[in-house]
Amino acid sequence: MALKVYVDRMSQPSRAVLIFCKVNGIDFEEIRVDILKNQQYSPEYKAINPMYQVPAIADGRFKLFESHAILIYISCAFPGVASHWYPSDLSKRAKIHSVLDWHHSNLRRGAAGLVFNTLLAPIKGLPLNPQAAKESEQILIRSLSKLENFWLKDGRFLVGSSQPSIADLSLVCELMQLELLSEEDRHRILSPYKKVLQWMEDTKSATAPHFDEVHRVLFKAQKGIRERMPTQSGKPELKSKM
Amino acid sequence: MALKVYVDRMSQPSRAVLIFCKVNGIDFEEIRVDILKNQQYSPEYKAINPMYQVPAIADGRFKLFESHAILIYISCAFPGVASHWYPSDLSKRAKIHSVLDWHHSNLRRGAAGLVFNTLLAPIKGLPLNPQAAKESEQILIRSLSKLENFWLKDGRFLVGSSQPSIADLSLVCELMQLELLSEEDRHRILSPYKKVLQWMEDTKSATAPHFDEVHRVLFKAQKGIRERMPTQSGKPELKSKM
Repeated sequence: MALKVYVDRMSQPSRAVLIFCKVNGIDFEEIRVDILKNQQYSPEYKAINPMYQVPAIADGRFKLFESHAILIYISCAFPGVASHWYPSDLSKRAKIHSVLDWHHSNLRRGAAGLVFNTLLAPIKGLPLNPQAAKESEQILIRSLSKLENFWLKDGRFLVGSSQPSIADLSLVCELMQLELLSEEDRHRILSPYKKVLQWMEDTKSATAPHFDEVHRVLFKAQKGIRERMPTQSGKPELKSKM
Repeated sequence: MALKVYVDRMSQPSRAVLIFCKVNGIDFEEIRVDILKNQQYSPEYKAINPMYQVPAIADGRFKLFESHAILIYISCAFPGVASHWYPSDLSKRAKIHSVLDWHHSNLRRGAAGLVFNTLLAPIKGLPLNPQAAKESEQILIRSLSKLENFWLKDGRFLVGSSQPSIADLSLVCELMQLELLSEEDRHRILSPYKKVLQWMEDTKSATAPHFDEVHRVLFKAQKGIRERMPTQSGKPELKSKM
């Protein structure tokens, strides 16, 4: 029985798990949980993930959620995953855990908070929140600076590696959601960080063609999301499905 | 050369790492990094943890920060750590990663946000923020409900275990900071969650006498922190050292 992978490709950790499975030739079934339709709250999905979030997996009767935990589990449970994704060396593995933990309270908080408060809140029936967006952007900028000057200081990939790990994939997918911002904002935020930009390209190349294929929905969504942005009356336009 | 453990006992992840080392008989040196004195910003400590946070460790030349990553590393690198702390079984280990990941964006965000915005902000020269405190309390309450009804549903300890893991220690230490709140607030928030309260007691018992010894500073701080709470003029009183 193939691994079941519950995702919405509009969610950045979902995309990381999907790309990882495809790159490593895992036999899996993609099951879409449409967040815009609130399918994550269905009784069926509650039995998979009672936290109502994507991604999640079911490997036979074993269920698991939280994308970092999923990436680690798949790396260890499925033969054929190349060792650079989650090295068995204790020190290298510890550094990967460290950057993944850092991700939660820094890069994720900044990037996801910025995109939500700048763009996505109206889709959830909430007002845009410029103050929260500003605070998130500050966290994001600090995180980008740490990526540039610390996490990427010793190699092409995170924590001094010459090949990507699950942490590279997870963090690059996080940053990819900035594609939803205006080109001007995205350029303003990312362009000072040359190593970060190169690392994003290197991670894309290392996971081609799956990276672009899985992100296609994001580029398509760009137009739809902007149509949902507040009009001059301050109310979001909800004309079309994303 | 003994493991160096850089901590401030006023930090909940520092306490988790310290208790873990003591319970498991690790040969280590505790090095205090006094956050109230901004010692985390010293050049010496920047070389240990450029994120300016505690805890961190140095095992010979190998340096590591982020408490979950540290707990996993010590579990694997030091002989003598009982297997229940970080089981080698793939499924059990995956569940521990899952609850630790969940911790970052839920229990930690709720508990630390509430305590900071209710009590500690003036110590850092910031105003108390009742709105942020209210939002943090909502996250905390939701997290406590998930602990009670999901994470603790199958056993005395998290994810169905009969003995504590690094996740139990990490999450219970997170909740212990609620001791800094008024007795009334703490009771109001925690008392509906009977399994959570029993689990906290069980984790304390399983790590006695080190749990209480390491938390002693927290109980002492309670009085000092309340003296710092805003007076009727709205300004914090900064009479005594914590």
